Amino acid sequence: MSTEPHLPPGGASTLPLPPMAWNAWGDPALAKPLTDEIAALVRGLLEISPSDAAPIAAGDVRLKPSRLSGVHLRGLAGIVGEEHVSTLDGDRLPRAGGKSTPDLLRRRSSEPQDAPDGVVVPGSEGEIAELLTFCTRQRIAVVPFGGGTSVVGGLDPVRGEFAAVVSLDLRRFDVLHSLDEVSGEAELGAGVTGPRAEELLAARGFELGHYPQSFRFATIGGFAATRSSGQDSAGHGRFDDMVQGLRVITPSGVLDLGRGPASAAGPDLRQVFLGSEGALGVITRVRVRVHPLPDVKRYEAWSFPDFATGAAALRAVAQQGTGPTVLRLSDETETGVNLAMTAKIGAPQAVSGALAITVFEGSEAATAARQQLTRAVLTEAGGTSLGEEPARAWEHGRFGAPYLRDALLDGGALCETLETATSWSNLEDLRTAVTAALQTALRATGSTSLVMCHISHVYATGASLYFTVLGAQRGDAVEQWRSVKTAAGDAILGHGGTITHHHAVGTDHKPWMREEIGDLGAAVLRAVKGAVDPAGILNPGKLIP
Amino acid sequence: MSTEPHLPPGGASTLPLPPMAWNAWGDPALAKPLTDEIAALVRGLLEISPSDAAPIAAGDVRLKPSRLSGVHLRGLAGIVGEEHVSTLDGDRLPRAGGKSTPDLLRRRSSEPQDAPDGVVVPGSEGEIAELLTFCTRQRIAVVPFGGGTSVVGGLDPVRGEFAAVVSLDLRRFDVLHSLDEVSGEAELGAGVTGPRAEELLAARGFELGHYPQSFRFATIGGFAATRSSGQDSAGHGRFDDMVQGLRVITPSGVLDLGRGPASAAGPDLRQVFLGSEGALGVITRVRVRVHPLPDVKRYEAWSFPDFATGAAALRAVAQQGTGPTVLRLSDETETGVNLAMTAKIGAPQAVSGALAITVFEGSEAATAARQQLTRAVLTEAGGTSLGEEPARAWEHGRFGAPYLRDALLDGGALCETLETATSWSNLEDLRTAVTAALQTALRATGSTSLVMCHISHVYATGASLYFTVLGAQRGDAVEQWRSVKTAAGDAILGHGGTITHHHAVGTDHKPWMREEIGDLGAAVLRAVKGAVDPAGILNPGKLIP
Repeated sequence: MSTEPHLPPGGASTLPLPPMAWNAWGDPALAKPLTDEIAALVRGLLEISPSDAAPIAAGDVRLKPSRLSGVHLRGLAGIVGEEHVSTLDGDRLPRAGGKSTPDLLRRRSSEPQDAPDGVVVPGSEGEIAELLTFCTRQRIAVVPFGGGTSVVGGLDPVRGEFAAVVSLDLRRFDVLHSLDEVSGEAELGAGVTGPRAEELLAARGFELGHYPQSFRFATIGGFAATRSSGQDSAGHGRFDDMVQGLRVITPSGVLDLGRGPASAAGPDLRQVFLGSEGALGVITRVRVRVHPLPDVKRYEAWSFPDFATGAAALRAVAQQGTGPTVLRLSDETETGVNLAMTAKIGAPQAVSGALAITVFEGSEAATAARQQLTRAVLTEAGGTSLGEEPARAWEHGRFGAPYLRDALLDGGALCETLETATSWSNLEDLRTAVTAALQTALRATGSTSLVMCHISHVYATGASLYFTVLGAQRGDAVEQWRSVKTAAGDAILGHGGTITHHHAVGTDHKPWMREEIGDLGAAVLRAVKGAVDPAGILNPGKLIP
Repeated sequence: MSTEPHLPPGGASTLPLPPMAWNAWGDPALAKPLTDEIAALVRGLLEISPSDAAPIAAGDVRLKPSRLSGVHLRGLAGIVGEEHVSTLDGDRLPRAGGKSTPDLLRRRSSEPQDAPDGVVVPGSEGEIAELLTFCTRQRIAVVPFGGGTSVVGGLDPVRGEFAAVVSLDLRRFDVLHSLDEVSGEAELGAGVTGPRAEELLAARGFELGHYPQSFRFATIGGFAATRSSGQDSAGHGRFDDMVQGLRVITPSGVLDLGRGPASAAGPDLRQVFLGSEGALGVITRVRVRVHPLPDVKRYEAWSFPDFATGAAALRAVAQQGTGPTVLRLSDETETGVNLAMTAKIGAPQAVSGALAITVFEGSEAATAARQQLTRAVLTEAGGTSLGEEPARAWEHGRFGAPYLRDALLDGGALCETLETATSWSNLEDLRTAVTAALQTALRATGSTSLVMCHISHVYATGASLYFTVLGAQRGDAVEQWRSVKTAAGDAILGHGGTITHHHAVGTDHKPWMREEIGDLGAAVLRAVKGAVDPAGILNPGKLIP
């Protein structure tokens, strides 16, 4: 076992790196420095002082030393091949966590940082099974790793009682195994990223249509393990809706779940491993519903006098099932700063009231019919059409918002998002309560705040609420955010929301899981965990209270 | 403990009786003697000889004696009140099983029949919790009972290793707890029957829209426990899709599951208790999605040259999402005997080829648009419109078919249904394989056969297949059917189907569950069972392999 601290050798690595920057969202080439408008907006709203946690260079990061012993390393290398194991800091650092604001702030620390003790990159399901057997025997914790986009601490290298913790990178599970064009089903490897999945499918004339904010980096396995939901969910459903079957490798054996499009053969076990966050097994293959590439896309933006009127309009569309592919609504504050159209953030307000976006995809006839039905409902509910342009602008910038956070953090702002869902009748109460909790908690840390909210996922019975929070960093910003997040989580559970609609649980939401599912629900999860992972090596410290 | 056989005291009972006849489907007032046409059809097709298992009167049935002791009875009565416990044969007999063909044939036996040792009818969740504690301590098995419509042996009074087995009738859980008109959510007691649910909701302008064949008798709790699917599933989804939340009383405590319309807070535990068939808890309340009563219903029937062409047309409708509420297709044989229109069974063939039914419900504008889109797809796919009448005839007779079985059994025919689901690309292979297996197996028993099939539930990726099988009773008809059913089940699993799409598992499908979910899947179910029902008293012998 290494006992000296590893000093990062200039970021040296031997493994292919994850697709995201180690200390920021996404692709460094797409980084967005604050425009003068946004900088002015932020300065005007928040009393920013220079951040205590300025970025540091990768070469200046110190990681805690790897605890993998020679026996461990030889064992791991014997299973996956030496070239697919690394304890180099340059390989460990990019897998040291996800992309929540606390994650990014922690990456700025000059103190020795937590990181997995090593990285393994298996190439087959057999190798994964062997790894899990070996790690069970050697008491090594295993954190499955896809795109690295978790924003809930789902990738934290929690060692717990174990000898060491390794990151199990699924990047080599990157193939389209099969496409059934008749049934509209594709089986994809867990390591296929969002864009790669769409590329592979588009070559055959098909689309998955799952576009969460993490789309460009996150993987099929990660979507399944976290119950991701994409921006087209009104039309194509949540990722868990799309999943027809999945294969999961566990320390106790292999699960092949999902026969037929629907079944009454007892509990739906797919729904136990969807959302299992690496704690119940390593998802290796996912069979998903796909659809032909749309012939037509139609865009239309709408303005509503206020959020409540807009929400009632979205409710009518969802309940009448008029069929938009995208349906979302920004509240007055988010509309006021043009957050839905990132190119215009901070520019003079483009739309008054509450901005809604609709997009329709499919055949010429179907999209025309659906748009017409939707239009009638939105107009009747008090909406005014703004035409195509704002909806196209939203689509153009839709993966851009997280890059702004990096620049805001650099500038001394605190910026994070959180989300929940509830019934339509409870939506406004929940929004009010969470907004107030965020404002109050930030004020208690000595910061003013800007709290924005949108609906981005609708159901017949309710909708999601997605909050973007801006404040000024005060003191230890990680601790500062923890106090704000705690207040928000308590408000969510206390006012009838779920602790997460699509970000998953990880470490950050675990404190609320007992209230979310009850003591007996927690006992059921522990019982399942005991059956598939008796030693508890899989992603310890996450999900299960 | 009673040691003498109980002789039924003329059917005497002290408890309210289940809604169905004790020895036949449904309501005796709706019994359908065979018309001359059907009788001729059956005689022409099958070589019928008088049944060995003619009906016997309730008063002539002998039940095995109750094994409940005085201690048991006093304990049960102390919890629910003396008037809500019975060991009378008149109360036990109607809860002795479900309504599969083997169930009905067994009810004709002059040998002592199996029945629960007693019936308890609790009036509150607290009483159920106390009952489960008492039964755990006294080692009494508990079979939850709703409408008594199981066709898979889900209600068999399996005593196993326990001292006795009681039927826990949920009929007193018969209220609409709440209706959230804004969110379109209703919380219903588990004992509310299908018609009562619609009556309670219609009084407030709403509809659940769940119309399985068992609709008139089955209950909300039963729908949830068996993953029922109704005839409007194309529009309103399966029952498990409708469920937003549920409360389950288990020997280990209470589960309150479902926060918000969707969640990423880990595994969806609702999906563990949906389909739990009384083996993981007693479902007492179900929160379901409801919708306003439709303004308009539009009907249209279609003819296709053959089943394959019709199936491809249904696939196109399902994949393009044109929005019918009902969508179904009879194969050539079923179309030939007019089975979809029960009033015309055996009359000269009304429709050639394969008959499809579409129904559209909703607003004037939405139904018009959906019908138009659907029409275009069906026409393009080779369909010919037959207008409204055959679709209305289907709807009129849609709950009638099971009554015919009683008359057929009386006449010496063997008649049963079974069902599965698979992907669109595998549909024809599976239909062919199951049809051949049924024909071959019946032939091996010395009977000719008539095997009919329809699609009644469609999904983007696949569809259900529902088989109706007619033969002649030969020898011990229960054993005869067992051999046929085994062949069909083997063919289903061997050709990529699920062992059940909406009938559930019970005892009858349990032999295939290990293949359906795998050894580790079975271990997961056993682990959950161990957490919620450590003594294993809940519906033993069902579901879990």
